[in-house]
Amino acid sequence: MTRENHRENVAGRANVEDTPELLAYYDELDGFNTGALWTVANKIEPWEPKSASVPVLWRYADLRDKVLRSVDLVTPEKAGRRVIYFNNPGRTDVSAAVGWIYGGLQVMNPGEKATAHRHSASAIRFIMEGSGAYTVVDGHKMTLGRNDFVLTPNGTWHEHAVEETGTPCIWQDGLDIPFVNAMEANFFEVHPDLSEPVAYPVDDMTKTWGNAGLTPGGGAWDKGYSPMFKYEWDRTYDALNAYADASDPSPFDGTLMEYVNPTTNGPVMKTLGASMQRLAPGEATKAHRHTGSYLYQVAKGSGHSIINGQRFDWAERDIFCVPSWAWHEHANASASDDAVLFCLNDLPVIRALGLYREEALGENGGQQPT
Amino acid sequence: MTRENHRENVAGRANVEDTPELLAYYDELDGFNTGALWTVANKIEPWEPKSASVPVLWRYADLRDKVLRSVDLVTPEKAGRRVIYFNNPGRTDVSAAVGWIYGGLQVMNPGEKATAHRHSASAIRFIMEGSGAYTVVDGHKMTLGRNDFVLTPNGTWHEHAVEETGTPCIWQDGLDIPFVNAMEANFFEVHPDLSEPVAYPVDDMTKTWGNAGLTPGGGAWDKGYSPMFKYEWDRTYDALNAYADASDPSPFDGTLMEYVNPTTNGPVMKTLGASMQRLAPGEATKAHRHTGSYLYQVAKGSGHSIINGQRFDWAERDIFCVPSWAWHEHANASASDDAVLFCLNDLPVIRALGLYREEALGENGGQQPT
Amino acid sequence: MTRENHRENVAGRANVEDTPELLAYYDELDGFNTGALWTVANKIEPWEPKSASVPVLWRYADLRDKVLRSVDLVTPEKAGRRVIYFNNPGRTDVSAAVGWIYGGLQVMNPGEKATAHRHSASAIRFIMEGSGAYTVVDGHKMTLGRNDFVLTPNGTWHEHAVEETGTPCIWQDGLDIPFVNAMEANFFEVHPDLSEPVAYPVDDMTKTWGNAGLTPGGGAWDKGYSPMFKYEWDRTYDALNAYADASDPSPFDGTLMEYVNPTTNGPVMKTLGASMQRLAPGEATKAHRHTGSYLYQVAKGSGHSIINGQRFDWAERDIFCVPSWAWHEHANASASDDAVLFCLNDLPVIRALGLYREEALGENGGQQPT
Amino acid sequence: MTRENHRENVAGRANVEDTPELLAYYDELDGFNTGALWTVANKIEPWEPKSASVPVLWRYADLRDKVLRSVDLVTPEKAGRRVIYFNNPGRTDVSAAVGWIYGGLQVMNPGEKATAHRHSASAIRFIMEGSGAYTVVDGHKMTLGRNDFVLTPNGTWHEHAVEETGTPCIWQDGLDIPFVNAMEANFFEVHPDLSEPVAYPVDDMTKTWGNAGLTPGGGAWDKGYSPMFKYEWDRTYDALNAYADASDPSPFDGTLMEYVNPTTNGPVMKTLGASMQRLAPGEATKAHRHTGSYLYQVAKGSGHSIINGQRFDWAERDIFCVPSWAWHEHANASASDDAVLFCLNDLPVIRALGLYREEALGENGGQQPT
Repeated sequence: MTRENHRENVAGRANVEDTPELLAYYDELDGFNTGALWTVANKIEPWEPKSASVPVLWRYADLRDKVLRSVDLVTPEKAGRRVIYFNNPGRTDVSAAVGWIYGGLQVMNPGEKATAHRHSASAIRFIMEGSGAYTVVDGHKMTLGRNDFVLTPNGTWHEHAVEETGTPCIWQDGLDIPFVNAMEANFFEVHPDLSEPVAYPVDDMTKTWGNAGLTPGGGAWDKGYSPMFKYEWDRTYDALNAYADASDPSPFDGTLMEYVNPTTNGPVMKTLGASMQRLAPGEATKAHRHTGSYLYQVAKGSGHSIINGQRFDWAERDIFCVPSWAWHEHANASASDDAVLFCLNDLPVIRALGLYREEALGENGGQQPT
Repeated sequence: MTRENHRENVAGRANVEDTPELLAYYDELDGFNTGALWTVANKIEPWEPKSASVPVLWRYADLRDKVLRSVDLVTPEKAGRRVIYFNNPGRTDVSAAVGWIYGGLQVMNPGEKATAHRHSASAIRFIMEGSGAYTVVDGHKMTLGRNDFVLTPNGTWHEHAVEETGTPCIWQDGLDIPFVNAMEANFFEVHPDLSEPVAYPVDDMTKTWGNAGLTPGGGAWDKGYSPMFKYEWDRTYDALNAYADASDPSPFDGTLMEYVNPTTNGPVMKTLGASMQRLAPGEATKAHRHTGSYLYQVAKGSGHSIINGQRFDWAERDIFCVPSWAWHEHANASASDDAVLFCLNDLPVIRALGLYREEALGENGGQQPT
Repeated sequence: MTRENHRENVAGRANVEDTPELLAYYDELDGFNTGALWTVANKIEPWEPKSASVPVLWRYADLRDKVLRSVDLVTPEKAGRRVIYFNNPGRTDVSAAVGWIYGGLQVMNPGEKATAHRHSASAIRFIMEGSGAYTVVDGHKMTLGRNDFVLTPNGTWHEHAVEETGTPCIWQDGLDIPFVNAMEANFFEVHPDLSEPVAYPVDDMTKTWGNAGLTPGGGAWDKGYSPMFKYEWDRTYDALNAYADASDPSPFDGTLMEYVNPTTNGPVMKTLGASMQRLAPGEATKAHRHTGSYLYQVAKGSGHSIINGQRFDWAERDIFCVPSWAWHEHANASASDDAVLFCLNDLPVIRALGLYREEALGENGGQQPT
Repeated sequence: MTRENHRENVAGRANVEDTPELLAYYDELDGFNTGALWTVANKIEPWEPKSASVPVLWRYADLRDKVLRSVDLVTPEKAGRRVIYFNNPGRTDVSAAVGWIYGGLQVMNPGEKATAHRHSASAIRFIMEGSGAYTVVDGHKMTLGRNDFVLTPNGTWHEHAVEETGTPCIWQDGLDIPFVNAMEANFFEVHPDLSEPVAYPVDDMTKTWGNAGLTPGGGAWDKGYSPMFKYEWDRTYDALNAYADASDPSPFDGTLMEYVNPTTNGPVMKTLGASMQRLAPGEATKAHRHTGSYLYQVAKGSGHSIINGQRFDWAERDIFCVPSWAWHEHANASASDDAVLFCLNDLPVIRALGLYREEALGENGGQQPT
């Protein structure tokens, strides 16, 4: 076995050639569960991040039928949940869509309910189609329409369902399962009653906490996640338009707003963040790159993104990912309608730990050659 | 001069009788700018607060004409601002409405503008009648309708005005002038140009920061006051109704929401707080008391409050105050309409310094005898 | 009665001459507990603060005998505490030493104990002479030597005493009594048993929380004051010397360190701050002024301070005050020994509420003419 | 390929048998970078964490010679740093000692200096033997003795060295390299001058910030790591003894103190924590388990730990690890001397993200059978 794989001829970097004496020394170190740092130093201290994930576009046109087919193929009782998950070619070992983020498409028929459970992983359930979906989170029932999402934070009991009077619903699940597993901190529990009672007025958490600039008198909230629970599309879209009126777009992101916990202005959960961004008719952004992993879903409109030089054309409901430190830029295909992208990410982790860094593309007017 | 005014015959309290020797000693102490604590101890360490302010009701029916008359009596150039201020009988030395809070009614005609200035005192301008009012705060122009209010925080340049196309406007000014003076920390400056340019899109601060659960991407705000600047009546009233739907009313306050800085969920400014509370048709609260000083304005409806056993009947636009540690309870006079009270207070000071305390009235079913 | 006292002929300021019509209007306003703002506006909105307090030096040489005499004149049972308080000529109405700060010298004989009590005011007890002093704070007994101080925060039961084996002790009490009274938030309670049991190992709070860069495992502290309770002179003096070694002195303050709550690095209590500052041999500072009220005690050495142009020469144990926005500079009289000043202040209030402002003296090389 | 590996016959868990139809469906999903959740759900949502790391004891008696031998085998110029790293058998893919923590032993001769560099990983350098070691961090030179440690936080330039007048030094490096790599956020930069100038008085950061209950006047620190930089053994050991005097030991940890950033009382860096714990003579703790990964070094004394039922006997300078959710208990072998354990961990990450959980062993009197 050779040990000199990562040599670099640069001052301050390891550059040690294998010798018989060294190879013997290395073998000896192995016997004591140790190694010589200089054989791996350049590998474990890279000049900059090189993500294991690859950019992928998942077309809803391809996946919708497959998700619906699962209804015929497996029962909820056997499958737990009928979900097609995004399996990034670079992350199949941890079943991740990108980085440490799990994503999948789930389908549920009217009258169905998933078994109530809780886990240390945190989730965002983003509704894509259908009516009558709702989720109960620690006894709070939140009704859900298209492009709305609900939080099921670390440790909360939750139960997804579709009303008898609804239609088949498809939504995107986004979770930090791979991350929490990597941290060796994931616990899972099935609700002792398999289901969970509704204990409060319907949608009480958004009614109580979802009022800009107003907080409930005497109200206190000190949990590590947002009490709003549900974030609605209509209000988000209005907010994006109002903010667009009042400000210039970012050259990299158009008009972007981050979903926040209204009691902290911080992320909706400690480990998963979300944002919505609007590209004006005809808008094309410049390229930049930053740390963190990002899973996009097209909430409205069509266009394309260029990620590390590769172009991905997307339509409404398509999903795509941007790995850490990958160059990316977005363009709206329409000259008359806006396009809106929902984005799930691990920015709360990256920022809380001081690991955020970004860079603008300087060459070529800020546009990647493709 | 006698020195034994505050004697109490209670273990742990001062109870020293004047003697010729002591009186001589006291005189001697006087000569060195000192005194004997036991001559004042019981006075400066009271068993509980006894406010210097008295409860007062200011009827709009009485004051409206007087405010309007000031337009004929003084010019803006001479008067600075045409304001009738609330002069609590117990606080005339500091021109306060209650405690350390200043309040007054200001009038302005269409096309008028007040000289731009700034000061260490913080203000809330609450619109009572008229159209076309606006305020420019550090270059941000905020348009104002009935029951809306705008912040002009400590240190911000501000200029109040009414559009040429508007009608005569009356509003309530609320400031912490007496408090900032008491802290010997008030500075005042007239804008070098007497007026202040508008530097941003109209109403940009509410459009940018006033979106529940959403924050501007890349936006940072670390000033000690809310970036929302303007708080609107329509959204407040909707919020109160939504919150009322989702929760039981407080026995003391009905459905009360506090205005907050959306980036902290804390008070809108460091020294002045505000809240709006809704009394359902027929609702009458129980009595409690707490520290802090409170200036109410009736935003909607009619009813009465009982303050330290005294009944005050109020109608829309009336103003009244509740001094620190005064018992108080409120009742809506209507069986069909709700009543809504706007409240300005110094709770941010009281809470930040750990001085909040409250107590419910136990006797008489929680109702004060009147 | 004239109403035009505060006229200023400056754009943006009130400048209204009395007329018979206006005087009648003013009388009418009086009848409704209101006034015309322009009659007081310039008074309540000053260009800059003008403190009601005057600079005073209290010489220990003058006061020591007087304090000791109180032992013969009054019993602890009758007097509560034998204290000579500092009575600033501008603040006799609130018995304050400066601004809203109360200060006094207390004496206690060996074997004496004050009645245990608690109040909303916060206190700092700074030992000036004698041995055997201790204080019990919520069951924690803290032993006290010269230049040590102990906190008795808002709401804590406390009991001051001197051991039977000690000597007569004199200390300085510093409290925010005038401020808490002004906020109408002071409550007072005598301990039901008149005395308070010791419930923990002696000096446990400094042993547990007073270790730089180390915190007790599993320890949590969320009260609004420091868990250290006692701050010792030896450690403070060592710290000042270490910090002086590692940094340049401030031109205004020499080497100044602030006492902090080790769990927040913020002030020791929410309403009272403390600092210790060292003037090197021969050091004389430049003049500056800032908001806030300051009560100094000379912990070591001798020198002088110039306050608003007036020179005060001080020796060890002397006390003096600097009112808000007063110019001040300090000088060490010795060319061989350092001088150290202990300072009690209301900076926590001033800072928490955004009211701090400072200015350096530009003229005359930063030195006040005297 | 079979897909049914993780079936569980429990309500709410996936339990789907392979069928030809399903296997065809799975293959089809593969083609679109997707998979069926129920084939992996039980694997990625475990009932509780099962660490990939195994408990290991690294004996200093085994490793000391090997580290010293590296001096003869490689030059600093070629190797970068002469380090033997701990290679946990379950984590060889990421060169980690335990979980996501890297550890190693480094040796340096008098007069040697490592190339100055910086990276996004954060490090703690804990001195084991030798004199004259020092580290320059962003221009601050910190001298280091036995059991002292220095921080080189994320993004700071740093340079390790031993004075010409010193002796050969061995220390333990502890870093979050594997974690920062996993987050795909590691950047590395060699100092343009290869070395870094000393710009401040020696040891200024501990002199300025390492004073319990005192903070530099006017000092501000808002970086995400402790300004103390160096934590000294003597002060730590004194603190442990003082704290032990004032409190009962924890049943699981003896007398444990955590190293903190004195400006926040939080961890010394955002991604790496450290603690020191004292076992009294004869003390044996009870077993518990918690999330997070832990790398211990025996700073003083001898004893043993039982980790997931396996006994490890340790002597001074030995290193061992406790993986996430592993049962562990410690015992001091001496009846007369105390034993002290230094511990490096990722608790700051685990806590910041809400992933901490712990459990006491209930059976067998809290002792693991071995």
